Amino acid sequence: MSDLETLRSRIEKTTLQMLELLNERGSIAQEIGKLKEMQGVKRFDPVQERKLLNLLADHNKGPFSTATVQHIFKQIFKASLELQEDDHRQALLV
Amino acid sequence: MSDLETLRSRIEKTTLQMLELLNERGSIAQEIGKLKEMQGVKRFDPVQERKLLNLLADHNKGPFSTATVQHIFKQIFKASLELQEDDHRQALLV
Repeated sequence: MSDLETLRSRIEKTTLQMLELLNERGSIAQEIGKLKEMQGVKRFDPVQERKLLNLLADHNKGPFSTATVQHIFKQIFKASLELQEDDHRQALLV
Repeated sequence: MSDLETLRSRIEKTTLQMLELLNERGSIAQEIGKLKEMQGVKRFDPVQERKLLNLLADHNKGPFSTATVQHIFKQIFKASLELQEDDHRQALLV
């Protein structure tokens, strides 16, 4: 394998590991959504989101800037909330 | 810990694992960028990006839809390319 191929196979491996963690995170978000549903609590929690954004800033060692990291994770938070809202809609239809 | 607190600590743990992989992926992208720079090859490679998007589709087990997964990863690809371009600009300034 050429150097480029070696690096690309590492990129693929990392991408798939991230996919697994992303979906694991999605499943946990769904559990949180169901728990909040039962407790009658609002799903969107700006305090918790801010806490996670600060956690990312505190632990970010680069090369991505904290602004970039937070931008990417905001997309993940948004997708997680949509996942919880879809579950809620489906629960209403049952 | 309440159930919600337990789930939140799992979300935090997963978020930090993803951050680590994201930055690892960023470092590999930087290495690829440098290698391409030396070889005089263009940094943006639509074929490679399409390959990764297909890989994500093939391995996605949910709960996130493939469209959502691909949307999130497109942001990561974009950020990686910007990282390579920043390195290029800095190399020119040296």
